[in-house]
Amino acid sequence: MLLYLKSKDLLCEARERLTELGLEHTFLPQTQVFELKADASIYAPRVIKERLEEFGRIEGGRERTPLLDLLPARHEVVVKGRTFAPISFRNQAKPVWIAGPCSLDEENDIRENAKRLSGLGVQVLRGGAVKPRTSPHEFQGLGNKGFQILAEAAHEFGLAAVSEALSEADVEEAVRHLDIIQVGARNMQNFPLLKKLGRAGKPILLKRAPGSTLREWALAAEYLLSEGNRDVILCERGVRGLERELRYTLDLAGAAFMQERYSLPLVIDPSHATGLKQILAACTAGILAMGFAGIMLETHPHPVNALSDSLQALAPADFAAIADRFLRPAAVNAIDKH
Amino acid sequence: MLLYLKSKDLLCEARERLTELGLEHTFLPQTQVFELKADASIYAPRVIKERLEEFGRIEGGRERTPLLDLLPARHEVVVKGRTFAPISFRNQAKPVWIAGPCSLDEENDIRENAKRLSGLGVQVLRGGAVKPRTSPHEFQGLGNKGFQILAEAAHEFGLAAVSEALSEADVEEAVRHLDIIQVGARNMQNFPLLKKLGRAGKPILLKRAPGSTLREWALAAEYLLSEGNRDVILCERGVRGLERELRYTLDLAGAAFMQERYSLPLVIDPSHATGLKQILAACTAGILAMGFAGIMLETHPHPVNALSDSLQALAPADFAAIADRFLRPAAVNAIDKH
Amino acid sequence: MLLYLKSKDLLCEARERLTELGLEHTFLPQTQVFELKADASIYAPRVIKERLEEFGRIEGGRERTPLLDLLPARHEVVVKGRTFAPISFRNQAKPVWIAGPCSLDEENDIRENAKRLSGLGVQVLRGGAVKPRTSPHEFQGLGNKGFQILAEAAHEFGLAAVSEALSEADVEEAVRHLDIIQVGARNMQNFPLLKKLGRAGKPILLKRAPGSTLREWALAAEYLLSEGNRDVILCERGVRGLERELRYTLDLAGAAFMQERYSLPLVIDPSHATGLKQILAACTAGILAMGFAGIMLETHPHPVNALSDSLQALAPADFAAIADRFLRPAAVNAIDKH
Amino acid sequence: MLLYLKSKDLLCEARERLTELGLEHTFLPQTQVFELKADASIYAPRVIKERLEEFGRIEGGRERTPLLDLLPARHEVVVKGRTFAPISFRNQAKPVWIAGPCSLDEENDIRENAKRLSGLGVQVLRGGAVKPRTSPHEFQGLGNKGFQILAEAAHEFGLAAVSEALSEADVEEAVRHLDIIQVGARNMQNFPLLKKLGRAGKPILLKRAPGSTLREWALAAEYLLSEGNRDVILCERGVRGLERELRYTLDLAGAAFMQERYSLPLVIDPSHATGLKQILAACTAGILAMGFAGIMLETHPHPVNALSDSLQALAPADFAAIADRFLRPAAVNAIDKH
Repeated sequence: MLLYLKSKDLLCEARERLTELGLEHTFLPQTQVFELKADASIYAPRVIKERLEEFGRIEGGRERTPLLDLLPARHEVVVKGRTFAPISFRNQAKPVWIAGPCSLDEENDIRENAKRLSGLGVQVLRGGAVKPRTSPHEFQGLGNKGFQILAEAAHEFGLAAVSEALSEADVEEAVRHLDIIQVGARNMQNFPLLKKLGRAGKPILLKRAPGSTLREWALAAEYLLSEGNRDVILCERGVRGLERELRYTLDLAGAAFMQERYSLPLVIDPSHATGLKQILAACTAGILAMGFAGIMLETHPHPVNALSDSLQALAPADFAAIADRFLRPAAVNAIDKH
Repeated sequence: MLLYLKSKDLLCEARERLTELGLEHTFLPQTQVFELKADASIYAPRVIKERLEEFGRIEGGRERTPLLDLLPARHEVVVKGRTFAPISFRNQAKPVWIAGPCSLDEENDIRENAKRLSGLGVQVLRGGAVKPRTSPHEFQGLGNKGFQILAEAAHEFGLAAVSEALSEADVEEAVRHLDIIQVGARNMQNFPLLKKLGRAGKPILLKRAPGSTLREWALAAEYLLSEGNRDVILCERGVRGLERELRYTLDLAGAAFMQERYSLPLVIDPSHATGLKQILAACTAGILAMGFAGIMLETHPHPVNALSDSLQALAPADFAAIADRFLRPAAVNAIDKH
Repeated sequence: MLLYLKSKDLLCEARERLTELGLEHTFLPQTQVFELKADASIYAPRVIKERLEEFGRIEGGRERTPLLDLLPARHEVVVKGRTFAPISFRNQAKPVWIAGPCSLDEENDIRENAKRLSGLGVQVLRGGAVKPRTSPHEFQGLGNKGFQILAEAAHEFGLAAVSEALSEADVEEAVRHLDIIQVGARNMQNFPLLKKLGRAGKPILLKRAPGSTLREWALAAEYLLSEGNRDVILCERGVRGLERELRYTLDLAGAAFMQERYSLPLVIDPSHATGLKQILAACTAGILAMGFAGIMLETHPHPVNALSDSLQALAPADFAAIADRFLRPAAVNAIDKH
Repeated sequence: MLLYLKSKDLLCEARERLTELGLEHTFLPQTQVFELKADASIYAPRVIKERLEEFGRIEGGRERTPLLDLLPARHEVVVKGRTFAPISFRNQAKPVWIAGPCSLDEENDIRENAKRLSGLGVQVLRGGAVKPRTSPHEFQGLGNKGFQILAEAAHEFGLAAVSEALSEADVEEAVRHLDIIQVGARNMQNFPLLKKLGRAGKPILLKRAPGSTLREWALAAEYLLSEGNRDVILCERGVRGLERELRYTLDLAGAAFMQERYSLPLVIDPSHATGLKQILAACTAGILAMGFAGIMLETHPHPVNALSDSLQALAPADFAAIADRFLRPAAVNAIDKH
């Protein structure tokens, strides 16, 4: 993006504004032009233009996410259902708690889970039905008939239900039963699936792929918007970095960038990101303080029996301790802020 | 994995063997047990057991890829068709050259391309029909009708055709026309697609996801094998690292590990990995010398008009220069080796 | 590490305990042995042994950081000086605020800065004197005479002073003037410097190298302890990952792991980690909530004139806004917690 | 960098040239300006300007490495000594072989080593004297008195000697005895050490830090040049990425970029990069074929007794096998090329 400075007298002031905006810039004195690195900015091209127009004409600045850039600041996604009150996902507002097991195994467990979580103030029940497993020799889940099992348990106790649609073939069943459809990290750039979900008429929880940049994540959301679905919730679950003791590197600052730059509500999943339940209370405290729209935690009635991720799942007592410490006060704080 | 040393006298010799095998180990003197880090070894658990059995009983050592571990060393994948001679993909043998444009645009171009590439010694024609594009606002390809266009051009000039099936919905059309079906980097862990392709009866070219570990890549191949398809060719195309000037980090040593550990033939794609045509000749020299089963290069008749990846595509003259330098001598060398 | 189960009857209970501890384990039924991946655990080997001893004899488990492992939980580092009240760095206690410019340029600025920051509740003044600059053609700092300038400004207003010693040659001058000596990210594994600082008798702020693992960071601290210095404060300032819009990836979960595993107080520097002042308020909220011992922010009286990092430095008004929102309430909260 | 197109008629031709150069560009039609992303280009700013000047005036394009940019293509570094023939390090010429143990332990070993390696055609003997060890509890080397031991062994058998100076305090002794002074990966950005070595009057082998970008590496070399030392050899030894089975990710394509962009001779160290001797023959083949100026391999007379890196060191027979296969033919090939 180029800013053709309209008068030499504005040079100092323009420099100050650019510094204030945090925009990398180079001034070319012969032609009185500022070259701007607008591409990586926290502001949409349109915003940059507005903030600089007093200094001269501006040209260039590719709009990569025109649909996202039309969203209002702190865009709200409301999840509705007949059996629960509308749930609002919105950054800097009251955070939504999503909890449940990594994968569904038996029907009874999930009912008990739902009842318990509902009593603690959780609003959304998660549970994997069709499981994307790294190895073909691991438990592959109940299949998409699990959507109904999950949803019935959730709805009986006033919760919304979220689960992953692993393939285009799962979408119809997912739409029938689920309140939010999850796109898993491995499917973030499964574009045919994104296109189909963009037309599905349900809120989507779009997880970040562990090897993806922030822009690739935003562009995956843009796919959903390009098919008409603006009910998109982003979910950070860790990226690949230098981690040896943790499962992934939880990119909270990157999520804070996304919140500002792209307006979509963000949910953070520290369970998968870290794989380590001993630091989940600290992570929860940080996530809630940073103003994200929600948090997703993995909990299982008997972690030792879980068919996947048994080491990272919170046992009921551990989850209750976290909920007691953060879930009710968070609600109170959020009300204060309004 | 534990090695219960059967006699103190074998301690020194066991240590030497473990060092020779490059196996991380800790000796527990009280119980005369070696703890082995077999999980990251270049040898399959079975091989380690064979190489150590003279020192005592061995227990543990999870077999994560039992089907891959049954393949013979230097497993060969042969691609057959009515219009071309069988093409053998095998590490440490004569390398197969795959070339063509990133995406198909017009039919004439691809015929011309095919003719030219065939004349230079290329055996497989590549060309994207259904394109996975990071942004919904970029050219999305011709769709899977492009498979037929590609295949007709390839077959007319004695080449095999490879293209990406982006979704389960593309598989039928891909099976009808293509000789090798590519799984793209973004789909490496699209497990429903892998399962369907495992039953498709065609050789599969499985690209590595840029954020995946070597084991995740091997397990994606294991999915294909678990459905009965042993005709799997791996393709390294760069991982995410510290690159700023290049597109990805080309992991040639990782590919060398895969060659040894999992026996599948490997093809290397330096065009996508680096995004920089000025270093492709050097990379080609290295790839061929390392004994991989094949190389895949991007070439376009008029790079400036390419609808994707125009900067990295080799112009005809540049590709011809590389082929002249490496394709014929490589053929000669390979024959010498036999 | 191996656990030799002393009775079959304890198998289920042992499994539950291992799951509870989050310890990866494999049970070898023939010999009734659990292989444990203790190396990456959040517990020191000694702790694991204590928590498992009721199930049988335990062997192995290398102690990599024996000196760190002797520290009490929530080890406290107290910084003392004649002109300011003792400053306590301790995780889960009242957090210390460190602020100031990236590099010192003129004496007057730093006095003004010190006065203003002191008035807002900041306790430690930072400012680079000998600057490690990526390029030899960039401003290299005032040299170690700057330590005195910084310290005088700090001490006049009741603040402690921290600055980086870039080389062994800086240590003497640093010891004379500074209250805390910083080891920069690029010097984290400069072992001769660490050894000298381990004998310097001053608290050390040890920044994490952007390419280092958590264990390498801990081992760098172990170097300081091995020379007798237990007054070590760790500082997370971002690692290399997938960031394009931000400068580094801020690894808050990794820092939470360090807090638990190694007991040393942690300070977080979101300014260098993100390079983006627009998300510093959100990051500050998260950092304080997570219970770290301190936060370090970059502020400059006139960012546009800063000789380094001008885009990321907070202007006085921006810093004051953050301090107003978080510094006083944090003090209050911390008191509540005691 | 901006190109002010001097005539509309040149638009197509300019686009073709930019594509040919692989330069990312955006055309701004109103002002007939091309914005160029010259910063990440494989060409120095001066070269880009020369290649584009026919299309119009060019402004901008920061010269970050002005001294490196003055070097001729394929800059040669010649290492001289009284007891060996001059050794030329130059990309695309006859590669230099550097070999020896990770760390020196006993004098006799290194003499035997030197004799054996000399007989195989190796030209430079390596061996660590002052060892940078991740843990303070590991063997720290003989200290800088080891420089003399190494050099005497090398010189007796007509080899040059290379070893790491860990600190400014080692430089004097290093200059006295060594023929090439190594800057270790952890010290790549130890700027005081670089400055001192820039004035030391000896060739420097500058290893890449595992978390550094290519530009940071080039700028570290620029420090050496800025003090007057143009005898700089770069050494790639692996970066941090997704590796689990290997020690680091060997960035051969990044090294190929460096060769083209910055002209300095490159040596590749696959031993440290991979930590896996079973793939060293394949890596050696690739490295030699890519035209790098040299290769560095770790070899030890009795790997099981090595005090560091015992698993990755090649035993004498393994090293001899690699030398037999690659060292003599490489010499022959290189002569052919001239």
